[in-house]
Amino acid sequence: MGKNIVDKILSAHLVEGELLSGTTAGIKIDRTLTQDSTGTMAYLQLEAMEIDRVKTKRSVAYIDHNMLQQGFENADDHKYIQTVANKYGIYFSKPGNGICHQVNLERFSVPGDTLLGSDSHTPTAGGVGMLAIGAGGLDVALAMAGEPYYIKVPKVVKVELSGRLSPMVTSKDIILEVLRRQTVKGGVGKIYEYGGEGVKNLSVPQRATITNMGAELGATTSIFPSDEKTKEYFKAQGREQDWLELKADKDAVYDEIIKIDLSRLEPMVAAPHSPDNIKTCREIGKVKVDQVAIGSCTNSSYEDLMKVSKILKGRKVADNVSLVIAPGSRQVMEMIARNGALGDIISSGARILETSCGPCIGMGQSPGTDAVSVRTFNRNFYGRSGTNSASVYLSSPEVAAVTAITGYLTDPRDIDFNVDFSDIKVDKFLVDDSMIIKPSDNVDEIEVIRGPNIKPFPLNSRLVDKLEGKIIIKTDDNITTDHIMPSNAKLLPFRSNIPYLSNFCFSTIDEGFADKAKQNPGGFIVGGENYGQGSSREHAALAPLQLGIKGVIAKSFARIHKANLINSGIIPMEFENPEDYKKIDQMDDMEIDNIFDGIKNGKLLVRDKSKNISFNVLAVFNEKEIDMLLAGGKLNSIKFRKGVSE
Amino acid sequence: MGKNIVDKILSAHLVEGELLSGTTAGIKIDRTLTQDSTGTMAYLQLEAMEIDRVKTKRSVAYIDHNMLQQGFENADDHKYIQTVANKYGIYFSKPGNGICHQVNLERFSVPGDTLLGSDSHTPTAGGVGMLAIGAGGLDVALAMAGEPYYIKVPKVVKVELSGRLSPMVTSKDIILEVLRRQTVKGGVGKIYEYGGEGVKNLSVPQRATITNMGAELGATTSIFPSDEKTKEYFKAQGREQDWLELKADKDAVYDEIIKIDLSRLEPMVAAPHSPDNIKTCREIGKVKVDQVAIGSCTNSSYEDLMKVSKILKGRKVADNVSLVIAPGSRQVMEMIARNGALGDIISSGARILETSCGPCIGMGQSPGTDAVSVRTFNRNFYGRSGTNSASVYLSSPEVAAVTAITGYLTDPRDIDFNVDFSDIKVDKFLVDDSMIIKPSDNVDEIEVIRGPNIKPFPLNSRLVDKLEGKIIIKTDDNITTDHIMPSNAKLLPFRSNIPYLSNFCFSTIDEGFADKAKQNPGGFIVGGENYGQGSSREHAALAPLQLGIKGVIAKSFARIHKANLINSGIIPMEFENPEDYKKIDQMDDMEIDNIFDGIKNGKLLVRDKSKNISFNVLAVFNEKEIDMLLAGGKLNSIKFRKGVSE
Repeated sequence: MGKNIVDKILSAHLVEGELLSGTTAGIKIDRTLTQDSTGTMAYLQLEAMEIDRVKTKRSVAYIDHNMLQQGFENADDHKYIQTVANKYGIYFSKPGNGICHQVNLERFSVPGDTLLGSDSHTPTAGGVGMLAIGAGGLDVALAMAGEPYYIKVPKVVKVELSGRLSPMVTSKDIILEVLRRQTVKGGVGKIYEYGGEGVKNLSVPQRATITNMGAELGATTSIFPSDEKTKEYFKAQGREQDWLELKADKDAVYDEIIKIDLSRLEPMVAAPHSPDNIKTCREIGKVKVDQVAIGSCTNSSYEDLMKVSKILKGRKVADNVSLVIAPGSRQVMEMIARNGALGDIISSGARILETSCGPCIGMGQSPGTDAVSVRTFNRNFYGRSGTNSASVYLSSPEVAAVTAITGYLTDPRDIDFNVDFSDIKVDKFLVDDSMIIKPSDNVDEIEVIRGPNIKPFPLNSRLVDKLEGKIIIKTDDNITTDHIMPSNAKLLPFRSNIPYLSNFCFSTIDEGFADKAKQNPGGFIVGGENYGQGSSREHAALAPLQLGIKGVIAKSFARIHKANLINSGIIPMEFENPEDYKKIDQMDDMEIDNIFDGIKNGKLLVRDKSKNISFNVLAVFNEKEIDMLLAGGKLNSIKFRKGVSE
Repeated sequence: MGKNIVDKILSAHLVEGELLSGTTAGIKIDRTLTQDSTGTMAYLQLEAMEIDRVKTKRSVAYIDHNMLQQGFENADDHKYIQTVANKYGIYFSKPGNGICHQVNLERFSVPGDTLLGSDSHTPTAGGVGMLAIGAGGLDVALAMAGEPYYIKVPKVVKVELSGRLSPMVTSKDIILEVLRRQTVKGGVGKIYEYGGEGVKNLSVPQRATITNMGAELGATTSIFPSDEKTKEYFKAQGREQDWLELKADKDAVYDEIIKIDLSRLEPMVAAPHSPDNIKTCREIGKVKVDQVAIGSCTNSSYEDLMKVSKILKGRKVADNVSLVIAPGSRQVMEMIARNGALGDIISSGARILETSCGPCIGMGQSPGTDAVSVRTFNRNFYGRSGTNSASVYLSSPEVAAVTAITGYLTDPRDIDFNVDFSDIKVDKFLVDDSMIIKPSDNVDEIEVIRGPNIKPFPLNSRLVDKLEGKIIIKTDDNITTDHIMPSNAKLLPFRSNIPYLSNFCFSTIDEGFADKAKQNPGGFIVGGENYGQGSSREHAALAPLQLGIKGVIAKSFARIHKANLINSGIIPMEFENPEDYKKIDQMDDMEIDNIFDGIKNGKLLVRDKSKNISFNVLAVFNEKEIDMLLAGGKLNSIKFRKGVSE
């Protein structure tokens, strides 16, 4: 039986368990990445593990999130990360060097290697055939310490691409099509492996757009073969030595196959407020637009920005539109500055933002009240832009650029622009790694500098056999980690200060949550389907932990968030009968007894004392997870394993 | 008796009173500018005046302050300003087009014309021989409505420049030298007119750096002649028709003369925390630097950034330094993008910020805890960077760029860099005004769009003859408007919401001020020398007004703030005997009786009931000011004049 690409990489990295779909396996992690909004916490955890140097082939700490720096906190976090990275043998990518996923793709990606990153868009590197997974900061810290990463062995879905994209139809439209078919929860427990004849027509940056936004499926990751196109990319980056061929066997088997004929796709958008709310541009019609934003780890490559510059060249942004553009990396920025494309972009009336995540994470450029914003990003969750009343559409750079000129949402095929993209090919990228600082060899000389806003992460206590508490909040389906722990310009500076941050837990949908949780310690959260989708931030588990939450009962969970809950010693439970969700209400008094037995048997009996009813929840965990829950979280379980007393 | 330049412009614009030093004269204002953080309030005031179209030759509304846009408020302000400008016949410079003073210099400055701007650095345009004055938003609104601007006729100080600057000594060092000699309060009631042989060696951007930072002297404005160098600049901007020669008569007389031999100057900095705390770089020594910031309305011209790029070319920013650079206008940005200089800057490892005021107004890029930041800006007031513990040094772009490379404060003459600036001259600027939107002629079609954060400005009530209240705060000397109404990334979005903003009045030095003022309505502020220096923001008067403050007693006042207090109906009073300052304390109960007579006679008797003492304060006002104080502010006085009842 032939192997697919995922099987090949997983079996080469298997260190514990076996590759049986649904079971848990331990995988060796070759490389890690962190960004600054999750990184501070990850490095605090790494420090607590008391190792000397990281055990990975290469670990890189990026600064790309908190770059507006309104207050001392961000600069302090940057300095902490720079000094702690230096001490532990981690490469440090300075603020201004680029978005982690873009720089990783350019400079550190390796086909066939495994990458664990404390950012949900880590799968971007799947564009070159790397098995790249997003995880909580603690898991990344453990990987740096040489521990395996434990995953539920995923199903492998083949996405078979045939044909060729029509002009002005892009790889963004491919992933929007996948999202349209699979929805934001369709990918849970799955890896999407792209193949078929259509692949060879896609460049590496185009592939990376797809694997990047594959995160929105809830998938473990997405991956492309490493082929001649990949080789060309590595050669142009001066890294041909890092390239190797990687393809599925001819007779490889898959759990599921999706077929997409590229020639039938057309320009699409994800309409408010979900990345799977897909419509064609023509379907939506001429919506008047206030803002257009181009950039983010999804669409900020050299190729993307060259296309944008060619569309904008000699044209002017509409009077009523604010067009903001943030190149994805310093490599991209310098190349377009040197070849004149940036001049053309500036000439059009675009605003040039710093190379960073920027508005994609709500870090500035919030639209006005009731405004319409078209963005090349990957998420349009309610409120993520910083403006609750705004309508955010996700599109390709081509749609975005054309829309900025016309002033209304536009299918580029409906405008006679006569733009020629054929000469965009790159033979040699401008390589300059001087903003990536190598760690020092003189570890003893390094002082780790910790600003006053950097607080220790919260630790849970050992699990008890009986839990009692109130339902502090009952949510709808598809609650994102942005709902649980909002991430905006006002809160991001406090990512390393959980006690402060937790005051804003769930504040987007229930401003009183933190107070209620504090007043009723030991409480529960009740969720619907796909609870905890979106960003990998473990803060969405750490803030509830700080507030004394003991368990979450939901219809289903998003993968990374479920792992983060377990890592924090908060029990994730699934309704055995989803109908029971309707029977219980916010502020009901709940009780769960015989928990020690229950989590070993995969089932707990929950009693709603207010309603005087009981129902079963599934609490299926592997041995490692049970250990963690009993210890009150992963770091506790490691400490106890090492003989550290409570 | 020959006339100096100031006399010539003032007499050509005199519409009321006479040009007698110390008296009040009404001046016709030809042109106005606003920026967005003061502009919203100015346009709300303009709307209240019920005129159809502005009466000036040209009024321009710029967006340059609130461009991080973290929340809907900023974008709403921009839209309000864009639509209200369109309606009233005001040109609108889109966000991204540049800093108001830089764009004004490039595109709208006219030698011999008068300019009133709602920003304290409006004097920048004095670099081309324009009489350019910073004022509160209400005064600018009145000027747009065709009302004269009333000033106390200033003394004219001639600054006679001789010789030539040595290599790596800059026009920034000239103004630092003037500040060293004159201090931040030395310019009150004065206009600095530059002349002498040394002038002809200074380019227009160099002159504009001097007139810009002349604001830090507390001066009414600063001005240069309009000569051949000016003509060259206008020609290169494609505006030769706007140029005219302007020079002092040979026998012109001045109230005071300062002489500076340029050849004797050396690279200097303003050390923390005042622009007049001047030291040479060599005096300070090798202070380790964490951040370098280049830009702001003081030093972000094409010439400045070309020099920076030549220093940075082929070199790398020190590992521990974050270098941020914000070009001053889109013209500058596009020119350096097109000629390769921006590529060199990016290559050095600099972070490129959007064309805006940015970190100069604390809008992002706050240094870390205890960090040292070297900036090419004009103010280093305590806390203005957003980080109270930071040490901010003000320097020339040359010092800043060299420092970014070495990592410590560096006199460029001490490094053998071998940089040649001789080819920087510009024959033709890249002119593209497409981001400046002309107002519509179809006024009826325009809807002014007002977001929910835009609140009406506060109005005072008619003055009563006896005031009683507590001293809510007693401050030291040199209190800036940044102390009174802090301006940082968290508060700037609320510039159009005085009720909210006022909660943070004086919060940098006394967090409880707003609460105390609310609990003790009708209170007083006691200040030292030069109270209210710095930015022109009328919010520093409107917030105390909102909080019920009735009067300010100080040893002396900064010009613009004093006018703003009167405009708001708050009585500014000066200790007749400065020694009385020491006798009174915070929270003392105060009483002032017979105010109506007192303000006509220029003197009030203040009784401190807690201490059982009385003392005189000077309350010298002209007729117009008395009208305003009696009416409870300027807008009230205009309304009452028009017959509107209270």
